[in-house]
Amino acid sequence: MDKLSDIKKDFSQWYQDVIFQAEIVDSSPTKGCFVIRPYGYSIWEQIQKIVDKKIKETGTENASFPLLIPESFLKKEAKHVEGFAPELAVVTHAGGKKLEEPYVVRPTSETIIYHMFARWIKSWRNLPLKVNQWANVVRWEKRTRAFIRTTEFLWQEGHTAHTTKEEAEEFTLQILKMYKDFVQDYLAIPVITGEKSESERFAGADKTFTIEGLMPDGKALQMGTSHLLAHSFPKAFGVAYQNKDGEMESPFCTSWGVSTRLMGALLMVHGDQNGLILPPKIAPIQAVIIPIYRKDEEKAIVLEKAKQLRELLNTDNCNVVIDDDENLTPGSKFYHWELRGVPVRIEIGPKDIEKNQVVLVNRAEPERSLKKSFVSIDNVGVELEVLLDKIQKQLFAKAEENLKNNWHQSEKLSDFASTLEKNGGLYQTGWCGLEDCELKLKDFKGTIRCLLPDDKFSTCCVCGKKATSDVLIAKSY
Amino acid sequence: MDKLSDIKKDFSQWYQDVIFQAEIVDSSPTKGCFVIRPYGYSIWEQIQKIVDKKIKETGTENASFPLLIPESFLKKEAKHVEGFAPELAVVTHAGGKKLEEPYVVRPTSETIIYHMFARWIKSWRNLPLKVNQWANVVRWEKRTRAFIRTTEFLWQEGHTAHTTKEEAEEFTLQILKMYKDFVQDYLAIPVITGEKSESERFAGADKTFTIEGLMPDGKALQMGTSHLLAHSFPKAFGVAYQNKDGEMESPFCTSWGVSTRLMGALLMVHGDQNGLILPPKIAPIQAVIIPIYRKDEEKAIVLEKAKQLRELLNTDNCNVVIDDDENLTPGSKFYHWELRGVPVRIEIGPKDIEKNQVVLVNRAEPERSLKKSFVSIDNVGVELEVLLDKIQKQLFAKAEENLKNNWHQSEKLSDFASTLEKNGGLYQTGWCGLEDCELKLKDFKGTIRCLLPDDKFSTCCVCGKKATSDVLIAKSY
Repeated sequence: MDKLSDIKKDFSQWYQDVIFQAEIVDSSPTKGCFVIRPYGYSIWEQIQKIVDKKIKETGTENASFPLLIPESFLKKEAKHVEGFAPELAVVTHAGGKKLEEPYVVRPTSETIIYHMFARWIKSWRNLPLKVNQWANVVRWEKRTRAFIRTTEFLWQEGHTAHTTKEEAEEFTLQILKMYKDFVQDYLAIPVITGEKSESERFAGADKTFTIEGLMPDGKALQMGTSHLLAHSFPKAFGVAYQNKDGEMESPFCTSWGVSTRLMGALLMVHGDQNGLILPPKIAPIQAVIIPIYRKDEEKAIVLEKAKQLRELLNTDNCNVVIDDDENLTPGSKFYHWELRGVPVRIEIGPKDIEKNQVVLVNRAEPERSLKKSFVSIDNVGVELEVLLDKIQKQLFAKAEENLKNNWHQSEKLSDFASTLEKNGGLYQTGWCGLEDCELKLKDFKGTIRCLLPDDKFSTCCVCGKKATSDVLIAKSY
Repeated sequence: MDKLSDIKKDFSQWYQDVIFQAEIVDSSPTKGCFVIRPYGYSIWEQIQKIVDKKIKETGTENASFPLLIPESFLKKEAKHVEGFAPELAVVTHAGGKKLEEPYVVRPTSETIIYHMFARWIKSWRNLPLKVNQWANVVRWEKRTRAFIRTTEFLWQEGHTAHTTKEEAEEFTLQILKMYKDFVQDYLAIPVITGEKSESERFAGADKTFTIEGLMPDGKALQMGTSHLLAHSFPKAFGVAYQNKDGEMESPFCTSWGVSTRLMGALLMVHGDQNGLILPPKIAPIQAVIIPIYRKDEEKAIVLEKAKQLRELLNTDNCNVVIDDDENLTPGSKFYHWELRGVPVRIEIGPKDIEKNQVVLVNRAEPERSLKKSFVSIDNVGVELEVLLDKIQKQLFAKAEENLKNNWHQSEKLSDFASTLEKNGGLYQTGWCGLEDCELKLKDFKGTIRCLLPDDKFSTCCVCGKKATSDVLIAKSY
């Protein structure tokens, strides 16, 4: 196995190296698309399981809408088609014939879902209507990067309709909070939430809210969005219902999604020079037992004890595996599972058995002297639980510290422009609300990641005129 | 709500009526594709949950491969392209440009998966390799029917590689048995398993095994297939490994899948004139509580008791809901939930509370006098469990009886041709193995569904020459 590139010197290459070597993804013959390999996919399944549960708790139900959307549908909402037209993949031929009307492979499903909403929503009694689908979408991308920006990606897209704008906006924010809680509690990544500026809005939205994380290379990553859609959307698709007074009205709609991009964030944020580090609450494997023996007579005893240990520790929430491959040395097994980011390694050998102990090794602990702990086999269940909990917190604390250390406050663009361009990081400052000033940031590779609820800055960092809001500026993926 | 068409007189229209009225599917603007609505999708989620668990128990891991496959890939295996070419949807334009090489939307993923297998399989140590994906596939169909034959459908496709042909064939049969057990134990549908004749094989397979069910209209439905692939497949994609002696060999491969077609079978087999009937082990809702009251003072008491009851009965394996909609009468609620096939209705009113009882109503019991049972609230948990178990068995027994009643044995085609054409049904007979004789069956809308392991018939039902095998003949979907 090749060595990983230096995480500090070339983070981008380190990421590429680690996800291929840890068998998370592989490249594919389809331009801009990756194969998600079994170990990588098992992480995605963990994410899906928890997010799906949280979505259902909001009263949203899963459904399935067609992959292919008549091309004309995309054109019904002006801003929507403008936003997505350059990225569409188009099916022009099917069943051996040229199609009369081409289909686009869905880049997102608002258009076809609103077409269906128009059939399903007749009366105020049908509202709110809340559906979600787990699906693949295709957006033709020029520059791709595994999980972060790919031509095809997997996601969930929720779509809801409500009687009032207030209710719709409230639901948009409820979902945003759900995303934030999931990312912080499970992926152990602190995020900033806020509204996007007009130019960064979803094509066809009135308001777009985002969760933004900070990656180790100083760039911000948009990790999920929740949109309050413009009223033009339901109108374009003829979605209307009879209100309690018998009058016809258009509902207010939301859409929201998180994707396999979450995988990218997860793998980037916690890794180190030895590979990935997965937070215990999302890891597909919580602990790996490595039996250590030299002589044949030791082997049977150690393997037997390892199996007992697995039996003891393996529960619904704690997947414990044994690596009993006879062709590999313990050292190469350590390397293998460290690379894959399994949070805890359990070593057991003849001397440990004599002492009625095992060795627990914390993958997340950088300090060598603190990595290992010797625990009595009698307490190993509790000790493992405590350690997993500690690792979860340790990873979040480290990521949070990084976020704080890289959060700068600055009044003028000229004061932070060069550091932004060179080192990345997050910059809280003031903005007048005009796109001209926002565009200026591009000269230094910066964008407004979101508006902030604070108003510490009274002037725009670019033009010096009155600020309408604090904003967070960063380079982004 | 419209009445359902007569299930005996026009089964096809009944099916169409019931799946739309029970909000299982809706039609879509995409030709040949349906929207799976939340209630329908929740049944599919139940199927996925169990099948996914069973797949993982075989040591197979989930992964994700690209939706779009370079067109040239399909052409690498001669029979494969011949079989799929007429059904392909082709992406010719993307990102605003004409593509140099078009992509096909996957009709199945053997080609791209073998391309990846060629990268992953280097040594005998990498075998067996077992992957599965839950995915959408597109096959351009001329005549469609919800779940049974649609342009896009959802499925799982498993793909494995083995060192020996014996091991590969054994695995093919292990999967076939897994499918059979699932369909019989959960969907309560008895199936016949067997090998397909050469003309009915998967395009590029050496052997195709099938599970076949009998639908109420006398047609057979292929509900899942498991293929031992021809050696040409790995060779076409350059899949080769070094064996223990250091020589290069091609592995032996299998592929297998079940799809949303299972939904069609499930909904067709058990329904009656009042709607769907779902087997308890696969139903998303096991029981619905209908509170019955007239006066306002009764309402609070009955609703309170209904909530207690739900609390008591709702478990991980038993989803119990209350229908407390105040705008509907109990009668219209009965109708609503019968249509949707919820196995048990629990009625509770003031008199029941006085007597410390509830009424359990068995959706699957056709005999009016046996439908209802009065049970003490003290025993309702156990009684519900017993009733759900009974319904599961009742549905299977009914379907099995139908299968037996329609299984005919006949020596000569001339003896059963007209009944086959008119009434459908299953016909066991002899076949000489020649395609000419097989083609003759088409005159009477029959096909060989599978070869049978019996050899009750020594002569071919068409030509009268020596039979090579018993076969099962039926009309099919």
